[in-house]
Amino acid sequence: MTLAVFDAAAIERATTSRLVLDTIRDALIAHAEGRTHVPPPLHLDFAEADGDCHVKAGWITGAADFTVKIATGFYGNPARGLSANHGLVCVVSARTGQPRALLDDRGLLTAWRTAAAGALITHAMARPAAGTLAVFGTGEQARLQALWLAELRPVGLVLVHGRTPDKAHALCDTLGAHGLAARPAGAAEAARADMIITATPARSPVLDADRVRAGAHVTGIGTDMPHKNELPPALFHRAQLIATDDHAQCLDHGDFGHAVRAGAAAEDGDIAAGLLLKAPVDRPEAAITVADLTGVGALDAALASAVLGRLRE
Amino acid sequence: MTLAVFDAAAIERATTSRLVLDTIRDALIAHAEGRTHVPPPLHLDFAEADGDCHVKAGWITGAADFTVKIATGFYGNPARGLSANHGLVCVVSARTGQPRALLDDRGLLTAWRTAAAGALITHAMARPAAGTLAVFGTGEQARLQALWLAELRPVGLVLVHGRTPDKAHALCDTLGAHGLAARPAGAAEAARADMIITATPARSPVLDADRVRAGAHVTGIGTDMPHKNELPPALFHRAQLIATDDHAQCLDHGDFGHAVRAGAAAEDGDIAAGLLLKAPVDRPEAAITVADLTGVGALDAALASAVLGRLRE
Repeated sequence: MTLAVFDAAAIERATTSRLVLDTIRDALIAHAEGRTHVPPPLHLDFAEADGDCHVKAGWITGAADFTVKIATGFYGNPARGLSANHGLVCVVSARTGQPRALLDDRGLLTAWRTAAAGALITHAMARPAAGTLAVFGTGEQARLQALWLAELRPVGLVLVHGRTPDKAHALCDTLGAHGLAARPAGAAEAARADMIITATPARSPVLDADRVRAGAHVTGIGTDMPHKNELPPALFHRAQLIATDDHAQCLDHGDFGHAVRAGAAAEDGDIAAGLLLKAPVDRPEAAITVADLTGVGALDAALASAVLGRLRE
Repeated sequence: MTLAVFDAAAIERATTSRLVLDTIRDALIAHAEGRTHVPPPLHLDFAEADGDCHVKAGWITGAADFTVKIATGFYGNPARGLSANHGLVCVVSARTGQPRALLDDRGLLTAWRTAAAGALITHAMARPAAGTLAVFGTGEQARLQALWLAELRPVGLVLVHGRTPDKAHALCDTLGAHGLAARPAGAAEAARADMIITATPARSPVLDADRVRAGAHVTGIGTDMPHKNELPPALFHRAQLIATDDHAQCLDHGDFGHAVRAGAAAEDGDIAAGLLLKAPVDRPEAAITVADLTGVGALDAALASAVLGRLRE
């Protein structure tokens, strides 16, 4: 029997945003409750080709499957007309060790679980009446986060802030085509939104903490390495509630870590994001709340397994 | 484009022992010369299912491909009629990071590279006139090591020593069918052969060092974890030449490490096995020589890439 391989098109056809959101909600809760296994990743560097490879594995304790995800980044590829990033996900039975299938997903699952985590936690932490959303960044994540948040709650207006006006306009058009009111905005205006999601590769803060209004919620999803930083320490200092998707990761290479090292947040001043998904969050109307998401490997396992279930139906 | 998957049958059809031996010779030399990258493996445990998963990556510096190998062992499988071990090898371009193919090899490549390394180093270190081979163990490795050594040099007689007489007889029949004279032997007789290869999962030495004759060569390939031990420290004490496939690994979890910890060998008393494959080994006629092989991950990369080349021809 030859191993089944599903390509990105098949994965896209089989998956709904609802499946992703439900799966990631459960997985974030499991992670917050310590019911996940995520061993240290394996890493290879290819200096001459300006490339690297990360292999990550994850398992939700007791789940039928676990996953091994191979992801590469070769940064000279675009100049040759190739995508910089490639990867695939191997789904393996946690009962017998047999490979069940390969998802040649071109990074779709990672993008989806990242977007779902951001939308879920933003919805959970923002005031019920919050209606305007600002997204910093104009890429795939900015788009998905806005669309999926709008599946979870009404979003009256999306303010799109990007460095490149053309890209900001293009994203507004896309969101508009999905029925969302959206327009480009400067950083100062975007910082005053009810809900803010940052999805950039910034190396210094994109948001002016002083401009963020009382009652706002901010979710940072772009900071996934120590040299990156989207949210300023001063924002954490103002925040009354700080959530992290993984305490150790966020401390090591998230915005939360930058804030702790700057003395703007206590090292134990965060709560596990997944715990906030279990029941309505008790937050003062005027509080500023912040979520720092660095990406949890066990979510890959949950999502790949759920998607494979649909593919096999 | 869907990722190509090749199954074990296709891999077996495309591969010759000559291809394996040539590829592994070059890869062992590259490893000895420091031209390989082998990051620490990734590991997951499944206590309830009595299973584990190891993910290993390897690259021969400058080679076109690298590999990520997923291997699982679920030890309750045989009771359910399933193999305990499963796995697959992903071949990835080291130039672009694109997955090139999946080898659903069911562990064939690992078995082949292990056997080739054992046969190559045994041939290189044994006296040119050595003619009798003893194998300790009756499994796939014992069979392959004997057959492939016989491709490298004449083997006049194979003495097969195993705990289970039926299995020893069966292996002798198999070797006989391939034109090799073979008969079962007790441990004492086997220990007096010109060449000895141990391929067992033993946890205490299978060989009496005092019985090994001057001029003999011994290769141990079964010891790949700290709790395993095939070759007695006293054998290393008698040896004039000790080779290891990977110094750090053999020290950590090979027979060489047991000998060093017992004070029977100096910690720097070994030579890299690959270096002995570059030119005829200068060894006194009466010397005892020993090779401790624990398995080198970069060999997987070299072999998978070579096999994929044949599959694509």
